[in-house]
Amino acid sequence: MKRFTVPTAVLFQLAPAISKPKVLAAAIALGWLTIGSIAQAQPATRNKGPAQMSSLDDARMVAPALVSYTEDHLLVDVWKRSGLALRDRSIVTIAALIARNQTSELPYYLNLALENGVKPKEISEIITHMAFYAGWGSAMAAVAVTKGVFAQHKIGADQLPAAMPKLLSLNEAAEAQRAALVEEQFGSVAPGVVQYTTDLLFRNLWLRPDLAPRDRSLVTVSALIAAGQIAQVPYHLNRAMDSGLTQEQASELLTHVAFYAGWPNVFSALPVAKGVFEKRSK
Amino acid sequence: MKRFTVPTAVLFQLAPAISKPKVLAAAIALGWLTIGSIAQAQPATRNKGPAQMSSLDDARMVAPALVSYTEDHLLVDVWKRSGLALRDRSIVTIAALIARNQTSELPYYLNLALENGVKPKEISEIITHMAFYAGWGSAMAAVAVTKGVFAQHKIGADQLPAAMPKLLSLNEAAEAQRAALVEEQFGSVAPGVVQYTTDLLFRNLWLRPDLAPRDRSLVTVSALIAAGQIAQVPYHLNRAMDSGLTQEQASELLTHVAFYAGWPNVFSALPVAKGVFEKRSK
Amino acid sequence: MKRFTVPTAVLFQLAPAISKPKVLAAAIALGWLTIGSIAQAQPATRNKGPAQMSSLDDARMVAPALVSYTEDHLLVDVWKRSGLALRDRSIVTIAALIARNQTSELPYYLNLALENGVKPKEISEIITHMAFYAGWGSAMAAVAVTKGVFAQHKIGADQLPAAMPKLLSLNEAAEAQRAALVEEQFGSVAPGVVQYTTDLLFRNLWLRPDLAPRDRSLVTVSALIAAGQIAQVPYHLNRAMDSGLTQEQASELLTHVAFYAGWPNVFSALPVAKGVFEKRSK
Repeated sequence: MKRFTVPTAVLFQLAPAISKPKVLAAAIALGWLTIGSIAQAQPATRNKGPAQMSSLDDARMVAPALVSYTEDHLLVDVWKRSGLALRDRSIVTIAALIARNQTSELPYYLNLALENGVKPKEISEIITHMAFYAGWGSAMAAVAVTKGVFAQHKIGADQLPAAMPKLLSLNEAAEAQRAALVEEQFGSVAPGVVQYTTDLLFRNLWLRPDLAPRDRSLVTVSALIAAGQIAQVPYHLNRAMDSGLTQEQASELLTHVAFYAGWPNVFSALPVAKGVFEKRSK
Repeated sequence: MKRFTVPTAVLFQLAPAISKPKVLAAAIALGWLTIGSIAQAQPATRNKGPAQMSSLDDARMVAPALVSYTEDHLLVDVWKRSGLALRDRSIVTIAALIARNQTSELPYYLNLALENGVKPKEISEIITHMAFYAGWGSAMAAVAVTKGVFAQHKIGADQLPAAMPKLLSLNEAAEAQRAALVEEQFGSVAPGVVQYTTDLLFRNLWLRPDLAPRDRSLVTVSALIAAGQIAQVPYHLNRAMDSGLTQEQASELLTHVAFYAGWPNVFSALPVAKGVFEKRSK
Repeated sequence: MKRFTVPTAVLFQLAPAISKPKVLAAAIALGWLTIGSIAQAQPATRNKGPAQMSSLDDARMVAPALVSYTEDHLLVDVWKRSGLALRDRSIVTIAALIARNQTSELPYYLNLALENGVKPKEISEIITHMAFYAGWGSAMAAVAVTKGVFAQHKIGADQLPAAMPKLLSLNEAAEAQRAALVEEQFGSVAPGVVQYTTDLLFRNLWLRPDLAPRDRSLVTVSALIAAGQIAQVPYHLNRAMDSGLTQEQASELLTHVAFYAGWPNVFSALPVAKGVFEKRSK
């Protein structure tokens, strides 16, 4: 594993006018680098080597077993299981990390997502989508990290989605049914929630063209499971499968998320997923 | 939107003896500033302009749609809905952010809270209250951020609550009933929890005078919904409404929290709130 | 309370070649230090005084009541209750903080854990264990903080567990029963989850020798309660008590976690713990 550390590269790119020693001092203060890793960091940055999980070097000094589980199982076995594409695994991982507000590993997985073919436009849409499904604070924390990764890859405004693009066409009948159900249940409890759910989410966010409906569902289901919010899993897992997610892919999503959101969240989701799978197979 | 960035101002105030370039280098390293924003940051700081969400500038470079939702809907429409005062919305937002341990947006919303009439004493009490309702770690993380905002506003010890003030008078009958119920249910399971719930929470924290009981309930209900802890919502929503929170205000709280804690948490809370509203209307 | 601040000591240790003013500038920028605390910080570091909660000084400037609750109740009363050893309380606290991704107080509690007799090997294993029970992101965030604390204590590779040690012997009958039950329930839903649960968790992680099975259970139960994941509490609380955790210790765990994960999470766990206690006493 090479000693390429994403944050260092980002630092140099953001701060060209400032002497490297000072930036490195700040980086050390931030815990991103040890003195020992500085010498290696700069050449690796120049080499444009594949993104590596910088914090694995830290883990060697704290938890060698965690490094072993990561290198011998998670990265070479779990990620390479058939049943869910690398691109999809990247989307699932990013959604899970943002849902759990875990930004420290996000640079590594954003770089990996770009390598795996997730487009900058799609990453941008995932973050916007997560604002509604994990709250503004989680999305804004992801923005702060993603800005650095985008700068490193020289991803400019031309590669971002339009703020207000032409929307996908809506399945009016299905949406009318959904809206009527929610209005009946909660219209008198929280008319504001009901209104924004229709106007901002289902007649706007979900119709934005730069993330496919199936991928929005992948993001949503991953986020729900990662945050332990199983009550909404049946609706969104069904929606995902209606949009083309296969049962095998959903099953692999559960396996993948176990590592990024912890076993308990996935074990809470398993009976719910089982219920959805069984109902659909009838 | 002006390029005023709260953290820069805080940095300069905290570090007057240290040359600005070095502080800026650290700020850049921290991802608070891009080189491009430095020129603007200093005059804006001097101008004492209204607090702006500094991270929105970052969002422009990552997720233009998120900026649009924030500027065109969240800040100008959601926040200005009738039914819940700006001051209350600020309290709800701060409670939700602390409950979710999301400190990156907290400086912006603390500044906004001060603008909206939330007193420093009240902010201080909200943080202390959250120690018990979201854990010590969340409160201490909020302390670290709030210290900077208070320093920026020159809020000193004279504007903080006393550590041990004269407490509000207690409704002894209601408290005896609550204590007896909890003792009966859990006295043999966790006598320590039962004891501290009485001694530290209901005979102390809730009686501290610098945050009104209705506002403590507003904080508590917001925190519970934001953290997905619906089991305690019925007790605390009833308590809030007994202390003067109207159903319309509770309904708007749900709408407001949807944006800061994500739609799933609010959709999990909706049936619970509906149950409380229906029981009370009988 | 002395003004010893853990991060400063760590900074100086990590960055010997860099002048102290620059490191301090970065530390100030990070919000770890105020100008006022610098003079005291260095002598205290040299004195090797007991670790103190650095952020309490911040809290004095924001929430004096929170300081009072911490100093007059949490640290001198709660921590010293009989029924759960200081060492166990340290394990519970670290697990709760990692489960909630709350790293800001972690340095203080890691230092306290070392003082309380938790071995570096055990801390290392707790972090690895948490990767599976709270997700990789939480464990890696803990790694970044723990690295500094270990460096400060000059804890090197010789004090860490082997990546692949000789495992404890397995109770084959009990494990076969567990595996069969999970296979029956979820084998068709997520075969990957079922496989890794057996291969990586119960035939590997749980058998690693440098954290006793009873302590792994203590970590797991604390993490579950702290993250609000009560669905898995019955299995793991029973497992903990089968491994030697007494009911009194479990009861104190609940009391202790209330302060670190907030009252609502503990009140959600109380009826579940009550059910486990009652079933076992029959």
